[in-house]
Amino acid sequence: MRVKDLMDTKFLKIYPDYTAKKTIELMYKKKRYSTAVLDEEDKLVGWVMSIDLALIDDKSKKIKEIMHPLNEIIILHENDPARDAVIKIVEHKVTSIPVLNNEGKVVGMVRNCDITKTLAKLYDIPVYNLFKIFERELKGITWDELMEAAAVVTKHTTGEDISAKEYEKRIENTTFGQALWACGGLEKFFAGLIKIGEIAIARRVAKVR
Amino acid sequence: MRVKDLMDTKFLKIYPDYTAKKTIELMYKKKRYSTAVLDEEDKLVGWVMSIDLALIDDKSKKIKEIMHPLNEIIILHENDPARDAVIKIVEHKVTSIPVLNNEGKVVGMVRNCDITKTLAKLYDIPVYNLFKIFERELKGITWDELMEAAAVVTKHTTGEDISAKEYEKRIENTTFGQALWACGGLEKFFAGLIKIGEIAIARRVAKVR
Repeated sequence: MRVKDLMDTKFLKIYPDYTAKKTIELMYKKKRYSTAVLDEEDKLVGWVMSIDLALIDDKSKKIKEIMHPLNEIIILHENDPARDAVIKIVEHKVTSIPVLNNEGKVVGMVRNCDITKTLAKLYDIPVYNLFKIFERELKGITWDELMEAAAVVTKHTTGEDISAKEYEKRIENTTFGQALWACGGLEKFFAGLIKIGEIAIARRVAKVR
Repeated sequence: MRVKDLMDTKFLKIYPDYTAKKTIELMYKKKRYSTAVLDEEDKLVGWVMSIDLALIDDKSKKIKEIMHPLNEIIILHENDPARDAVIKIVEHKVTSIPVLNNEGKVVGMVRNCDITKTLAKLYDIPVYNLFKIFERELKGITWDELMEAAAVVTKHTTGEDISAKEYEKRIENTTFGQALWACGGLEKFFAGLIKIGEIAIARRVAKVR
């Protein structure tokens, strides 16, 4: 995933000759905390935050007198990996970052709320889906055998006496994020899955013999 | 994980009798876009955003005349699951949410940048770690056998002719997030791992025979 897959291409355009008053009204209407200042070719020339606009007394002041200069602005290129957007947002604690193309034109804005939405999707994947893949990929093992193995592993690791049916019911309403939290992280969740696969295979082999 | 595990307990305290001028200066100093307004018992009474402060002309105005009332504020309880913070930030596109305790006192602030940081940690786990767990949990399979199986599966799925050594080198610098992106999501990544485990076992069984 690249920055261009994450960015919002409908963003507010503010120009250096706008007054503070006009800019505040536009930002208020669009619910923006910070915004890019562009020249007539859409190239980035500055950055304005709502708190900068709150600070000034004379609202007839031009944006070019208030804006942060280019060298103070955190930027992204549209072809940067999406991970760079995450790193910059976390490091600089900003809410949005302007995205430039090869010509230096602003082509979009990466917003923290959109990043949160994208990152959070992974956590919301149902654990049930992962077990369905387990069933499909693990040749010769049935769904019931998998649930029985899962119940055995749960009893081993937590001491909880859970039946295969109860385990199945539980994973119907569990997300990947909840499972990670319950297991104590990705590595432990993953170790549990491997154990379940091994036990399902071992029980199947024992049955066949 | 609960909201209290995520929240920042060092937050700016603004009171209804503060002037807009004083509040703007404090928010500018602390780099805050929005902040909670509290009464003398630290109970939440309002919410102020920097853009609201930019809009007003008379900076001697009191915060109580400017702040958003209680019924307009998105709030969290300290014992809410952390996931609720993510859902509210994405849904309402806010940058921070005040956190209340049972007495209605503000005890912290959940910020979008902290949520991004927490969510992003999962993506940064090295794939190498997962294979090390694979080796540890999959009884009787060596690291080299695992890498050979991974090279076989890679060739099967992508057509790429990669050696076990090359595969090992590749996963040394690959994060879970990059692997998900390369595979096309968690389900496909997981299916690939199961195939690797199965092939490692099958090759080991064939060798023993």
